[in-house]
Amino acid sequence: MRDGDTLAAVDLGSNSFHLVVARYEHGSLRLIDRLRDSVRMALGLRADGSLAPERRERALACLARFGQRLRALPPERVRAVATNTVRRLANPQSFLLPAETALGHPIEVVSGREEARLIYLGVAHDLAVTKQRRLVVDIGGGSTEFIIGQGYEALETESLQMGCIASTLRFFDDGKFTAKRWRQAQTEIAVELQQFAADYKARGWGEAVGSSGTAKAIGAIVQANGWSEQGITPVALARLRDAILEAGSVENLRLAGLAEERAPVLAGGVAIMEAIFETFSLEHMATCETAMREGLLYDMVGRAMHGDPRAGSIAALASRYGVDRAQAARVRHAAIALFEQVEEAWQLGSLDRDLLGWAADVHEIGLAIAHSLHHIHGAYIVANSDLAGFSRQGQQALAAIIRSHRRKPDRDALDALPERLRRPARRLTALLRLAALLERPRTTEALPPLHLEVEDKTLRLDLPEDWLAQHPLTRADLEQERDYFKILDLKLHVRSLEQAAA
Amino acid sequence: MRDGDTLAAVDLGSNSFHLVVARYEHGSLRLIDRLRDSVRMALGLRADGSLAPERRERALACLARFGQRLRALPPERVRAVATNTVRRLANPQSFLLPAETALGHPIEVVSGREEARLIYLGVAHDLAVTKQRRLVVDIGGGSTEFIIGQGYEALETESLQMGCIASTLRFFDDGKFTAKRWRQAQTEIAVELQQFAADYKARGWGEAVGSSGTAKAIGAIVQANGWSEQGITPVALARLRDAILEAGSVENLRLAGLAEERAPVLAGGVAIMEAIFETFSLEHMATCETAMREGLLYDMVGRAMHGDPRAGSIAALASRYGVDRAQAARVRHAAIALFEQVEEAWQLGSLDRDLLGWAADVHEIGLAIAHSLHHIHGAYIVANSDLAGFSRQGQQALAAIIRSHRRKPDRDALDALPERLRRPARRLTALLRLAALLERPRTTEALPPLHLEVEDKTLRLDLPEDWLAQHPLTRADLEQERDYFKILDLKLHVRSLEQAAA
Repeated sequence: MRDGDTLAAVDLGSNSFHLVVARYEHGSLRLIDRLRDSVRMALGLRADGSLAPERRERALACLARFGQRLRALPPERVRAVATNTVRRLANPQSFLLPAETALGHPIEVVSGREEARLIYLGVAHDLAVTKQRRLVVDIGGGSTEFIIGQGYEALETESLQMGCIASTLRFFDDGKFTAKRWRQAQTEIAVELQQFAADYKARGWGEAVGSSGTAKAIGAIVQANGWSEQGITPVALARLRDAILEAGSVENLRLAGLAEERAPVLAGGVAIMEAIFETFSLEHMATCETAMREGLLYDMVGRAMHGDPRAGSIAALASRYGVDRAQAARVRHAAIALFEQVEEAWQLGSLDRDLLGWAADVHEIGLAIAHSLHHIHGAYIVANSDLAGFSRQGQQALAAIIRSHRRKPDRDALDALPERLRRPARRLTALLRLAALLERPRTTEALPPLHLEVEDKTLRLDLPEDWLAQHPLTRADLEQERDYFKILDLKLHVRSLEQAAA
Repeated sequence: MRDGDTLAAVDLGSNSFHLVVARYEHGSLRLIDRLRDSVRMALGLRADGSLAPERRERALACLARFGQRLRALPPERVRAVATNTVRRLANPQSFLLPAETALGHPIEVVSGREEARLIYLGVAHDLAVTKQRRLVVDIGGGSTEFIIGQGYEALETESLQMGCIASTLRFFDDGKFTAKRWRQAQTEIAVELQQFAADYKARGWGEAVGSSGTAKAIGAIVQANGWSEQGITPVALARLRDAILEAGSVENLRLAGLAEERAPVLAGGVAIMEAIFETFSLEHMATCETAMREGLLYDMVGRAMHGDPRAGSIAALASRYGVDRAQAARVRHAAIALFEQVEEAWQLGSLDRDLLGWAADVHEIGLAIAHSLHHIHGAYIVANSDLAGFSRQGQQALAAIIRSHRRKPDRDALDALPERLRRPARRLTALLRLAALLERPRTTEALPPLHLEVEDKTLRLDLPEDWLAQHPLTRADLEQERDYFKILDLKLHVRSLEQAAA
């Protein structure tokens, strides 16, 4: 990354969509533009997992506007991320395809924990550098994230499927506020918090920080009404709750500091905040201006400057499941050697190279569960683990490649990837298969020079004749591989070269 | 187990069915009866996973004969185990139900690795006690097991889906033996062996032992022909292979020491043995008289006398995936306390108690993959891991209980269990759910006295009124639990007792 580079991040939140544009200057980021649209996508999420057409239209129109602002930016400088509401769509592709077209950039769907990590990254860059641990709470429209972090690192991340929109709909669906419903909300929310509250309290923190709209709105109201001098306190929250109950309904809810568009989703957010204060015994919460979108920008800078968090996730995974590192390194080496010979012809990029390397690092991870069908177990672990830095789609691609690296390739899993990932994933699968096959004897004996040429769907692998003659098992494996390659829509030709020609 | 107790084991192998009956005397076993029938079940396995009717009839008739011999034995003294061919049936229940009726005892299906462990147990008891490691090879009708063991413990277990029947069908399907086909067989078998050969050779062993029919038949032939003085050697094997190729077909195959009924499946078995000798660089293999059926008997004695191998498997699983032991112990304690109050009314036995305890030990194992949906991940790990001592059905029941221990119970997974396990599994699930729910706060605070009464499908749980008042979250959880219990076909009533009454 160079001085003067422009970066942008798009956050497709359940309540609002945000666009932030920043310039990289002297090792830090300067925000140069912000756009926000209160799309309220969570309101359009129906019980069958579909998205109401009017919300869909509104979301796409907003993304088209954002897209115009982003038109001049190179694709590697833009990251767009969708969270809870898109996670919960029954068929996210039917929204993501037109959304990506409108925006002009791919949209990643991230897990709740990845969202939490990104939030922390954004918040940590806004606060003074301290050594103490922080509890960060981000009540969004569809989910709430909880992070304990220190410095720039998130130590614990949690995400619960309850946000200000969902909670307002669930507990106050007709817009009426009563003390009974409020108590009911407190109990039900507390039950959810209980899942990890003891662990979090055992970790402990020095300060609590609230990010995103709900926390900022509560902070603004309690300050405007003089209920708190700075930040949110239990007393101030109680007065806000009493004011809401006194108003009795959304229509009557008028409070100093309350923005008009926040009013319809305030009650659910305050109920969540009160339960959080109670469960975690908080006495004060500061609010902060940054959130996930800024975290995305810092994550882009971090990937470029300090190493990719995804590499760390893969290393942690390999270590947790006791991968045979020597074998993984042999397969990675062979896979990358093949990759470098075909990247141009197959139009593969640095992202694909990373993906292939990571797939090689953990392709045998499923052996921790059982030898039999370990490619399936490995894909299961990769698909279902919390892998910091990965989007859902990235994780899904990694899982599909591992799933298909031995035995019969799983064409369905590969075809279930978003369209733009399908072809590269099939090609990377082919390269990983060849690397794993050639290194199947698990010996330290070096492979012969590998010559691979590709032309669209055809691969030509040349191996020295005498090497093949000495390795009849590999030759037999390569024979069988031809049929497997057909499933990948590829043709494999293995040619044995006279030693002179090699 | 007492002196004079009679035990029996039934082995439903892919080639033959065996019954062994033994008496437990002065701490060891004395064989008192053996039955054997060359059912050749593997011949009836069709490509669509169904079993040819004539083989099915033959198998059931054999089991009915065995059943007569077993009629006087108490159920806890009989174990019947099915292996490769039943593992590969598309719908094993459709065979197992009539088979269990014919035999009069439940039939466990075991994984290849569990089969390997049982084989080693049988073999180790037949051999002199030594400190050196042993390689044991058991070429069966449908699969071949490889074990490296020491003393009575199997250190490495592998199972490959290739046996003497399958290989004979695959390489010599018309009964003709040619040198070309033999070479082809050698290459293809060697490719399979390569998967673990390097690891095994790195472990090393002092002696190699062959168990079961193929090894015994080869040993008998090479000795009868004077090709070896004792056991199997590479030279003797080569002479046997030449003799087979010289005969050219099954019809012409006549060899001293070859039993008539072994002739049709000899070639595939010898081809596997030759590839094993070559890949593992063996110079000698002793043959032994015992095999899986004797292992089953010793496993029964071991469970009774030296602790159950299943408990060790569960402990290893809990440790590998870093289960929170304090929480698991709390849940186990509560679950067993509930169990003891209902075991009589619900007709649950010591097997059920074990299963509930093990389920409690590892119910949170899926947290290693991710918090979200961890009950599903935990069930996946349990269902797919190699767990020594467990039958497939036992493992499946454990997985189904863990799958249903929180959130919505998975009725389909419970209903997919063999019929005799369904009702107990639903009931154990209910007990584990209650225990996990009551211990959900993860604190060291002791639970109140638990009073649980059951009457067929109705559970009445009494809790002290003041305790419930102080634990509103647990009360809310119990409320919600009523609906979940309906899915288990059970009714849950929670009564709050005045302190005086409690």
